[in-house]
Amino acid sequence: MSKYKLIYFNLRVLGEPIRFMFDYVGVPFQDVRIDRDKEWAGLKHSTGWGKLPILEIDGKQQICQSHAIAKYIARKYNLDGTNEFESAKCDEYVGVATDLRLEWRRYWFEQDPTKKQQIKEEFLNTIAPSYLSKYSKVLEDNGGKYLVGSSLTWADFFLTVFFELFEDTVDKNILDPYPILQQYKTNIFSIPQVKKCIENRPPYKI
Amino acid sequence: MSKYKLIYFNLRVLGEPIRFMFDYVGVPFQDVRIDRDKEWAGLKHSTGWGKLPILEIDGKQQICQSHAIAKYIARKYNLDGTNEFESAKCDEYVGVATDLRLEWRRYWFEQDPTKKQQIKEEFLNTIAPSYLSKYSKVLEDNGGKYLVGSSLTWADFFLTVFFELFEDTVDKNILDPYPILQQYKTNIFSIPQVKKCIENRPPYKI
Repeated sequence: MSKYKLIYFNLRVLGEPIRFMFDYVGVPFQDVRIDRDKEWAGLKHSTGWGKLPILEIDGKQQICQSHAIAKYIARKYNLDGTNEFESAKCDEYVGVATDLRLEWRRYWFEQDPTKKQQIKEEFLNTIAPSYLSKYSKVLEDNGGKYLVGSSLTWADFFLTVFFELFEDTVDKNILDPYPILQQYKTNIFSIPQVKKCIENRPPYKI
Repeated sequence: MSKYKLIYFNLRVLGEPIRFMFDYVGVPFQDVRIDRDKEWAGLKHSTGWGKLPILEIDGKQQICQSHAIAKYIARKYNLDGTNEFESAKCDEYVGVATDLRLEWRRYWFEQDPTKKQQIKEEFLNTIAPSYLSKYSKVLEDNGGKYLVGSSLTWADFFLTVFFELFEDTVDKNILDPYPILQQYKTNIFSIPQVKKCIENRPPYKI
């Protein structure tokens, strides 16, 4: 079996879906968490793009970008749907979730308190509902358990990790209008390997 | 053969790499170009996510998000590398190019002339060189002809279309410090099917 090293910060965001995936499929990996304040400046220039996460395979090959890493693991361990159309739907749902995460990012990194509050309100009242209602519909049309087809995919890990991020950093009640999304997140987070990963993880800021 | 309909605006950006791919592999597709000012408001709500591009397959299935659409076509018509690692590198290079495109987007959509000029200078002097020098290195290490492995992939179409976009909208000399990128773009745009597509395309704003 290949030896995997996942290099990221001590954050959920783009690392946690990949950590969940490894734990779910039972593949051991080295979970390297770079200290952004103390270590990153010295390391940044030695990485391919000056960005994390990076997946190192057998100490030789590297893949950057969370989407690329997750898709690679997903294809290798059967978490990418059962045919090419389902595989594409995984890409689509993660891509859309990334659009939403980038909207969240505007809020999170805004320094000006007045602007931050404005962006927060826009996110909560307009942007997030537009996406969440659509994900709600996708899940409803697909039976409520998984986003794609009739089995777990990497898209489920990305979406539920992002939901948790929004709950913890914007509004803990953000999913209240969407009981199907709440139940879905509860289900995914109750998968024994995921549950164990959550119970053992360090405290996160985001 | 499946019947494909690509629905996008009359723009290059996220549609052109997919159009090039279809033309390259010789697969006919209906190239639907929505008028953003006259048609989009009436159509937006009937789309899955209120976003384009969309690929419609046989009038039934739909895939949204340019990355998902391109990857689907690429896997179907052998433009996604020759193994799962190369496939992941395609995702990585398109993902990084998307990060760069989003930086460009900040410039393109800024309304305030002073801020726009500042963002333009930052893009030209700091952001773009950081990415372009790294792509230059990737190409150099890989022989200069293709980004991934020893054959054309969908990543080559995305990257060269974005290069053209930056040349046309920010600075026509943006690639001058990177002769390997200039030659690479010239090579991809000289592929007969791509050349023909470029010769016959309508005028674009972006």
